Amino acid sequence: MARQPNKVQIIPLGGMGEIGKNMTVIRYGDEIIVIDSGLMFPEDDMLGIDLVIPDITYLLDNRDLVKAIVLTHGHEDHIGALPYVLKQLNVPVYGTRLTLGILEGRLKENNVSVNNLNAVKPGDQIQIGNFKIGFIRVSHSIADAVALSVKTPVGVIVHTGDFKLDQTPVDGKVTDFYRFAELGDQGVLVLLADSTNAERPGYTQSEKSVGVTFDETFRNARERIIIASFSSNVHRIQQAIDTACKHRRKVAILGRSMVNVVNIALELGYLNVPEDVIIDIDEINNYPSSGIVILTTGSQGEPMSALTRMAMSDHKKVEIIPGDTVIISATPIPGNEKLVSRTIDFLFRQGAEVVYESTSGIHVSGHASQEELKLIHNLIRPKFFIPVHGEYRHLIKHSKLAQSLGMPKENVFVAENGQVLEFTPDKGAVTGKVTSGNVLVDGLGVGDVGNIVLRDRRQLSQDGILIVVVTMDKQRGQVAAGPDIVSRGFVYVRESEQLMEDARERVKQALEKCELNGVTEWAAIKSNVRDTLGKYLYERTRRRPMILPIIMEV
Amino acid sequence: MARQPNKVQIIPLGGMGEIGKNMTVIRYGDEIIVIDSGLMFPEDDMLGIDLVIPDITYLLDNRDLVKAIVLTHGHEDHIGALPYVLKQLNVPVYGTRLTLGILEGRLKENNVSVNNLNAVKPGDQIQIGNFKIGFIRVSHSIADAVALSVKTPVGVIVHTGDFKLDQTPVDGKVTDFYRFAELGDQGVLVLLADSTNAERPGYTQSEKSVGVTFDETFRNARERIIIASFSSNVHRIQQAIDTACKHRRKVAILGRSMVNVVNIALELGYLNVPEDVIIDIDEINNYPSSGIVILTTGSQGEPMSALTRMAMSDHKKVEIIPGDTVIISATPIPGNEKLVSRTIDFLFRQGAEVVYESTSGIHVSGHASQEELKLIHNLIRPKFFIPVHGEYRHLIKHSKLAQSLGMPKENVFVAENGQVLEFTPDKGAVTGKVTSGNVLVDGLGVGDVGNIVLRDRRQLSQDGILIVVVTMDKQRGQVAAGPDIVSRGFVYVRESEQLMEDARERVKQALEKCELNGVTEWAAIKSNVRDTLGKYLYERTRRRPMILPIIMEV
Repeated sequence: MARQPNKVQIIPLGGMGEIGKNMTVIRYGDEIIVIDSGLMFPEDDMLGIDLVIPDITYLLDNRDLVKAIVLTHGHEDHIGALPYVLKQLNVPVYGTRLTLGILEGRLKENNVSVNNLNAVKPGDQIQIGNFKIGFIRVSHSIADAVALSVKTPVGVIVHTGDFKLDQTPVDGKVTDFYRFAELGDQGVLVLLADSTNAERPGYTQSEKSVGVTFDETFRNARERIIIASFSSNVHRIQQAIDTACKHRRKVAILGRSMVNVVNIALELGYLNVPEDVIIDIDEINNYPSSGIVILTTGSQGEPMSALTRMAMSDHKKVEIIPGDTVIISATPIPGNEKLVSRTIDFLFRQGAEVVYESTSGIHVSGHASQEELKLIHNLIRPKFFIPVHGEYRHLIKHSKLAQSLGMPKENVFVAENGQVLEFTPDKGAVTGKVTSGNVLVDGLGVGDVGNIVLRDRRQLSQDGILIVVVTMDKQRGQVAAGPDIVSRGFVYVRESEQLMEDARERVKQALEKCELNGVTEWAAIKSNVRDTLGKYLYERTRRRPMILPIIMEV
Repeated sequence: MARQPNKVQIIPLGGMGEIGKNMTVIRYGDEIIVIDSGLMFPEDDMLGIDLVIPDITYLLDNRDLVKAIVLTHGHEDHIGALPYVLKQLNVPVYGTRLTLGILEGRLKENNVSVNNLNAVKPGDQIQIGNFKIGFIRVSHSIADAVALSVKTPVGVIVHTGDFKLDQTPVDGKVTDFYRFAELGDQGVLVLLADSTNAERPGYTQSEKSVGVTFDETFRNARERIIIASFSSNVHRIQQAIDTACKHRRKVAILGRSMVNVVNIALELGYLNVPEDVIIDIDEINNYPSSGIVILTTGSQGEPMSALTRMAMSDHKKVEIIPGDTVIISATPIPGNEKLVSRTIDFLFRQGAEVVYESTSGIHVSGHASQEELKLIHNLIRPKFFIPVHGEYRHLIKHSKLAQSLGMPKENVFVAENGQVLEFTPDKGAVTGKVTSGNVLVDGLGVGDVGNIVLRDRRQLSQDGILIVVVTMDKQRGQVAAGPDIVSRGFVYVRESEQLMEDARERVKQALEKCELNGVTEWAAIKSNVRDTLGKYLYERTRRRPMILPIIMEV
């Protein structure tokens, strides 16, 4: 038997300097395990892109070494890339039951069939090659979330996943503090910990505090209550249902993902609902409005979601009735602020009473604030620390927090995606770089839209396009038809006929000049037309539309 | 002399249900005055649009009645439409000195020459026809801001403009509480009041509190300090300079609008700066880094601004040096959150210490919170109330606040742009509607981009465009050249040659079918090509690019 190497590598393929697309590789010798495979929602400048997944070239290049994918919880930014990853990489997946339940739904939607999903329970330990992986219960804004301990021959690695330290969780299942303390006592080589809320002082409020606010709001509501929330927040849904029961209201579920998750959670026993409480959305008119709660998607103002459609009077089953109370039990994800505002405004216009962000207690975060992070660091007392899950500034703040607890600066690694971090029992260092990056998903296309296409979309979106078509007589070397100019997204043609006529005249002149000067190469003619027209239009309009000359030959 | 009518009309042309584009018309008989003429920044879905101004058809239709435009302060959302409005409407403009100073700069930039700008001082009263207009000092995030009282034969109208009730303003010039109280005592018919912060409980903090935070930050900084702020916030700039003086640092000014406003404010005496404190940006390297402050634009992460260029290592005069302290003394305007985050991340990457939003006290709002609004209502005690300047939900919250103070619901008007609100001494009612709306400015084009162009830009931005060109032989009724397909923003062609080849084949088949079936109308042929190709591409890619068939004739 070969001598065991005395080093372990940690390679983040996503989640560094960004919110989303979380994926971390741990490699020991010829064995690789992967923690999470998340997606990221596109940035504003990724026009037309549906979602972004990590570049897994490194895993495909080492496909025989990949032993397993281990999941921390069922949020999109941790499991959303799996439908794409599992198509290319057939490996066992391990996760808790709710996580796998949600994953199965996603796989089905994407027509991916996989038969190697393995359910674990918090507290379980599994051996995969040289890795002994432990699943440790934590609180988060989804049920059944776990942190991971990965025991390797070099030392123990702890990855917190997303977590908070809720002292009064809705299901009564408190974070496994003991296990963290025990690991700390035995010695941890590297800690990777969630940095999302590293900017926030103090503690994150308990999920239960939202239940108190629900109760107050229900007490004041006289007509129907409509609650929008993330469908994956099973505890939030539980609290909404509990409050509905207390106030003797029936609950109808609306929106595809809300219906899906509620069904999965009911089936797996993660939601406790007395019989006859949940009714079909078609039955709501059989009850007085004071006896109804509607649980819906749309807390992010997504244009096609149930709540947004209601706000726009565009939902086929439910319309807002003046006097309805709408609770938006979520904070806008950065980038969604304007969509959410617009939805709130339209709900007010429809006569609803809207309870939202600015009202305190209607939403709490699922991520640990600074004091919770400090506690985790002090429990685990790792030798090395890698802040994960966050924009660069979050990683920096988390790094400083670790240093404020006494960790030497050189033991903290603010890493970038693709960096190879190598650890021996005594030393950590960046020793290399593997392929990493964004793979853009647009419709069925995975990775076929890159920078050139995006640059074109940006230009098209700003000033539109002018297409100049000329048919050339090949033999005589002169224009046979055209030039014709067609524009889209540039200017409303009926109101700018003169401008377009003048533009055509300029192109004609440019073509004549080419003919006179004996310019016959198409590329040269095209570039001439492009320059002449571009300059002219910029002078007249201060706009720079895309100009696309096309020459046909007869 | 005709009997004087016993009613006055208030017609908002902008600022209702939106942040920006503030403009209010007051009409009595055959006399009109206009309060403010602001611009609005484009919404996310207004692709390529530079700015939005109010539709002033109503004013142009009644151009002989317009006696004056009266300004409350010099922010873009109150004066930014004037370069466009004054081109079409030659009327006297009244405002305080700093307001007019900033306006003159804007007019010059837009090559508009106007000779009818009239400076007033807070406390002044002027008579314009039947209107007696009083200028009342208020605090705001720009110096020289005023509220307006408009005495008409029907009653007094008070418009607060944008305001807060700063008890310790930087220049010591406190809001003219006495004048508001006096007006209230004499009787006010209608109050129009700023609703921007109607959601916020309590009081807005004093501008002076920012000075305290500046002082603390300066005390901890060892190298250069770079402060980004709104250029128009003269008081903020004064505090930055005062703090720099106290800590014996020189101040360099960076960014076009910052340089402009500082020059105007110095010239008009709104900034007090000891000699030799301000240095040229080219001189900064003559001083130790601990002796430098750079005041810059870019607090909103604007891509072309000085701060963003520094963050991206793209500024030709200043680069970030590790150890620099960057203070972003502003809150992101809704929609700018991601730009600001990105700038902060890049500054951290350059090694700067960044002090921003999450740090308390680095910025305060310029708008009154709920307790201040209550005070203004209680001082003025109007008969009727119109909440202005805000999204719909802000107007609703402000309306409820007024009712909580005892105002009858029917005396509060949550109005929409273009509505005619008519008041007699005893009654108020919506009596009509005039033309109003958004005029989009794109480059030199004012109003030439409308819904059709925007819809095209949106489609182009999402999935790009495919152009299908065919040259037809007119006499033989058959294809002479092509079909050729050119795409932009759809897919990276080199990686999808097969797809494009298949697409061409489909178009060819569609054309042959047309020929076979004797379809000769171009419109029919085009629509055939569009449908066939669109369907095929959607099946293959799940994308819906714009498809533009062009037929040339020889």
